[in-house]
Order: sequence, then structure tokens, then C-alpha cells
Amino acid sequence: MSTDELEIRNLVATWLTASRAGDIDAVLDLMTDDVVFLVPGRAPMRKQEFAELSRIPEGTAPPQIDGRSEIQEIVVSGDVAFMWTKLSTVMTPPGAKAIERAGYTLSVLKRVDDRWLLARDANLLVPVPRQTAK
Amino acid sequence: MSTDELEIRNLVATWLTASRAGDIDAVLDLMTDDVVFLVPGRAPMRKQEFAELSRIPEGTAPPQIDGRSEIQEIVVSGDVAFMWTKLSTVMTPPGAKAIERAGYTLSVLKRVDDRWLLARDANLLVPVPRQTAK
Repeated sequence: MSTDELEIRNLVATWLTASRAGDIDAVLDLMTDDVVFLVPGRAPMRKQEFAELSRIPEGTAPPQIDGRSEIQEIVVSGDVAFMWTKLSTVMTPPGAKAIERAGYTLSVLKRVDDRWLLARDANLLVPVPRQTAK
Repeated sequence: MSTDELEIRNLVATWLTASRAGDIDAVLDLMTDDVVFLVPGRAPMRKQEFAELSRIPEGTAPPQIDGRSEIQEIVVSGDVAFMWTKLSTVMTPPGAKAIERAGYTLSVLKRVDDRWLLARDANLLVPVPRQTAK
């Protein structure tokens, strides 16, 4: 496995760990300033909107967030790479039922100042019907 | 605009024209053999499945297919490029109502034997509520 691929795998692992910990600043540090998030049924989302949606108001209990990523492919070409993954996420708002989503992502990464960062991301996850009470 | 970007724009235009004409072989010629199509709520689709879903049985009237693509960005790095577009499509099965879908795509292209081909594609289109009878 190349160093680049290892670094990109580390980025994914760090992203999931920071999300679990509710460390929004650490997540924001993993993306380019011009990042674009594409999801079905809404306008493209930029970094500022991602940050605003992620911030939990002071004194509010944060949702529990967990995710599992299975990287299907990473291809590096110069300072650009692409990756697709099989991803599942579980978000549990305080006192509410868990919301599970699963599907695939296609992402573009850029090498900026010798660090790989997420630059473009298409998130194709859909809600998973709940099969067991949690 | 670079030659590469022009060639990729031509690929998109040719794809739409061939789709309108129902020329499946021409569409298949625009993708790599290892192409992967990602759409919400289903498993990744490869070239053979794309071909099987596109073929119209002999003697059957084909659906009318139309599409409009607004390319938002193309970035080339070596023999790999990525592109995202705003796309809307209308499919009209014979004797049935038009089905309109709109949204965004994120695609990876590869240069193979000096031709740009679609290699990975995330399609985030969702159905558009019908507002006027057609």
C-alpha cells in the first residue's frame, strides 16, 4: 500500500473518530476550504454550512454519532485522488431513537501543503429500515 | 479552456446525444470497462448491468430520454479527472407520463488510449414533482 493511500485511510479513520467524539473542529480540519458536499435532494453544501449544521448549541446534549467505513478503492494521480466507500452511520439524538443510514460515497481528495484533505464528496446513503429495537 | 476539458465536455455532450438517440452502444463506448455507477439505495452497478438495463427488447418502443447537463467543474490531474454537474433528465416510456429527475453528479474520468472515458459516477438525482401536465 502506498504512503498516499495510507494517509488517505488515516484521514477516513480520523474523520470517524472525530465525529464520534463530537470534535467538529477536527472534522473541519480534514477538508479543503473549497470543499463541496453533494447529497440527494438538496443544494451543494460548502464548508461554512457544514460547520453550522454540525455545531451543537451550548448546553445542548449532542447526538451520538457512529460510523463504519469500508473503503472499496483509492486511486492517486498527482495531487488528486478519488475514493469510494461503503458507509453506514448511526445518529442517536438525545432521548430519541437511533437513525441508521447506509450506502456508498464517492469522494475526491486533494493534497494541500503535503496533507490529503477531502475536497468533493457525494453521499448516497439512504435510511435503513429499523429491524431491531435499540 | 484546456484540450482535456474540451474533450471531457464533448464526452458529456456525446453521452446526452447518444442517450436521446437510444444508441446504447455509443453510450457504452464512453465508459471504461471497469466503470462503477453509484446511485442511492442500490448496489454499485457495473458496465454489464448498465448495458442490460439499457437494452430495449426487439419490437418494443423505446422510452424517450432527454437530459440537460450544466457542468460545474472539471479538474484534470494526469490521466485522471473529476467533474461535477447539475443534471436533469426526463424519461417518457411509450404511452406513459414523463418521469423527471434532477440533482447533481460527481464523476471520475480516466484517460485510456488517449481518450477520456467515464470511470466512476455518483448519481444523486431525485424525482421532480410534476407541476404541469405534459
